[in-house]
Amino acid sequence: MTATSNHYQVSIEADPTLPIIRITRNFDATPAQLMRAHTDPELFARWVGPDGMETKILDWDASTGGRWRYIARRGDEEYGFHGCFHEVGKDRIVQTFTFDGQPDGVALETLHFEELGDGRTRLHAQSLVDSFEGRDQWLASGMETGVEQGYAKLDALVAELR
Amino acid sequence: MTATSNHYQVSIEADPTLPIIRITRNFDATPAQLMRAHTDPELFARWVGPDGMETKILDWDASTGGRWRYIARRGDEEYGFHGCFHEVGKDRIVQTFTFDGQPDGVALETLHFEELGDGRTRLHAQSLVDSFEGRDQWLASGMETGVEQGYAKLDALVAELR
Repeated sequence: MTATSNHYQVSIEADPTLPIIRITRNFDATPAQLMRAHTDPELFARWVGPDGMETKILDWDASTGGRWRYIARRGDEEYGFHGCFHEVGKDRIVQTFTFDGQPDGVALETLHFEELGDGRTRLHAQSLVDSFEGRDQWLASGMETGVEQGYAKLDALVAELR
Repeated sequence: MTATSNHYQVSIEADPTLPIIRITRNFDATPAQLMRAHTDPELFARWVGPDGMETKILDWDASTGGRWRYIARRGDEEYGFHGCFHEVGKDRIVQTFTFDGQPDGVALETLHFEELGDGRTRLHAQSLVDSFEGRDQWLASGMETGVEQGYAKLDALVAELR
């Protein structure tokens, strides 16, 4: 961890006409470094989720057609998540996402790492579900805390990788 | 193949407010028989797609988190498709779907086999994409021919399985 990494603001937006959440966030890292932090299970476990939550990877094959499963723990709380990787490309990940507490719910997530030059990258993340109610429940769940705190940890991690 | 199987009408509908296509179709089969015809690669290859199209399975793991890939051929035409199985349950399949000719496009498909009693089942299939334009392109592509002819072949296949 260095003292020099910027902490950029995250934008979380609900699409007005589609059941989609869009997240945009800049990083002082290359697309390749961010891809590594999203696909290497040890690195991913170090930054994902809110502060104080410990992530344990149970299953992980970050390749096109692979699967993933992890649990997040904090004290007595435990939350499980799972899905499959539809596509793991050079600067793009498409995956499914289910919270085990709502086993019939599923989101289709697309991450794109846009190279901005000078070692910076803009992450565009899109999460698509099949109802506006489901989308708005996610937005009302306090998800932005986990997103913001997770990406601050990712800032620190990619500063190490540089 | 028996002469006694009914050929039910298929309903293909565009959701008015969501980028979803919904397909509904009855079958003279149990949910378990239809699950088998959707998950066994040899059976699946025998019925999927329009008449005259030959399906070759290249990769197939019809389990939660598994992957699939096949090509469909007719004369000089060849079309590839691939995705991952997010969930393969008792009467439910959730999977991703990409046509290789549009590699950045992806649909999230949910199949539910509703038991109607007397050996009959209603299939509810939902296909979710991230734009109305993409959804309407699918609807305009002549997909109903493949759906109708495929399900007529599935009628004949489940008549054999009975």
